[in-house]
Amino acid sequence: VLLVEKWLAAWLTRPASVPTFDEIPETHSHVVIAGLGRFGQIIARVLAARGIPFTALDGDPSQIEVIRRFGGRVYFGDATRPEILEAAQVEKARAVVVCISRVEESLKTVELVRRRYPHVPVYARARDRAHAHRLMDLGVERIIRETFLSALELSRQVLEDVGLGRREAAQTVQMFAERDEKRLEADHAHAADPAKLAESEKRHAQELAELFEADVEKRD
Amino acid sequence: VLLVEKWLAAWLTRPASVPTFDEIPETHSHVVIAGLGRFGQIIARVLAARGIPFTALDGDPSQIEVIRRFGGRVYFGDATRPEILEAAQVEKARAVVVCISRVEESLKTVELVRRRYPHVPVYARARDRAHAHRLMDLGVERIIRETFLSALELSRQVLEDVGLGRREAAQTVQMFAERDEKRLEADHAHAADPAKLAESEKRHAQELAELFEADVEKRD
Repeated sequence: VLLVEKWLAAWLTRPASVPTFDEIPETHSHVVIAGLGRFGQIIARVLAARGIPFTALDGDPSQIEVIRRFGGRVYFGDATRPEILEAAQVEKARAVVVCISRVEESLKTVELVRRRYPHVPVYARARDRAHAHRLMDLGVERIIRETFLSALELSRQVLEDVGLGRREAAQTVQMFAERDEKRLEADHAHAADPAKLAESEKRHAQELAELFEADVEKRD
Repeated sequence: VLLVEKWLAAWLTRPASVPTFDEIPETHSHVVIAGLGRFGQIIARVLAARGIPFTALDGDPSQIEVIRRFGGRVYFGDATRPEILEAAQVEKARAVVVCISRVEESLKTVELVRRRYPHVPVYARARDRAHAHRLMDLGVERIIRETFLSALELSRQVLEDVGLGRREAAQTVQMFAERDEKRLEADHAHAADPAKLAESEKRHAQELAELFEADVEKRD
């Protein structure tokens, strides 16, 4: 905490034109979290709860305060810069979790990690389907769309409350999610073709509707 | 689809200063979805798959095209305007699902629905904890933080991959989520007091860490 405060003070009083980054102590088998917004904070807090070492990077000094509250280590620094990744010892990390919300910055970070540390698995938060496809281009191991699961859960609650029943609501959402994930992967092949993407979306919707209609018929 | 196209044409050629909205046919027991971004689209697609009638409202004409692909009904209109809500027959709706990403617009819509249609349950997407607290102030029935579940799921995958094992990873995240939800509710009472919120966050982190430490000790 004292070190963080020292860094904070140094950061706040630095000359505006001189790029700075923090000295990061030697770590092994740690997880590197790039970006400490709403998303990265959850990752950091879950890892902290289990005592798993992590190094978190964020260019925004206000995030330091947040992580300090639960005793985590966090460093100022823009994860799109090679010297910051080197200082964070990505070389020795178990994984890099890219939780940066801005698409271009996220991709730049992933690209850099991939090129310099090809042996380190990369996980990433995706803004949307297009971002997910570009992360797939870079060979990211695990990708999750940032609003997908919360939207599914709210859908499930709506289904349940309009009378579908607990089990049927859960099964519907589960099936939707599985098919949507498969479609996302299949769409990767023609991610640059809006007509094919639209066609895929329409087909997906029809297939699902037919599937659930068949379910209803079977019960009759 | 033809009607939608007619509306689209009318909308695109309208005088800029004249507010317009679509005529919406009589519906019963439908779900009203306000906002068709990444979040609202999932709700709309899940409901469409199950044949549950819904009316979707969005001020952005480009979203029309998206919903058209899977055969949904969608209307142009800003959900913060009383006449749009009236046209969407919120009066007779089973529920209103507010999926608007901009916080102030979301709150304005909820407030309007609450005041004019107090009998209709409201569900909402929250940007973050602060937004969730303001939605609680307005008595929203179901609130979900938009990136919370995807962040939890990515955390779970990280835990599993660093060696925690499938079951333990799932349990950790489950426990974290339950406690975090409880804390969100408890924090509502002092949502305007940053010092108390910070204290609550710190205590929450300590409790979790102790809980998992106790788990590890028990196994020894």
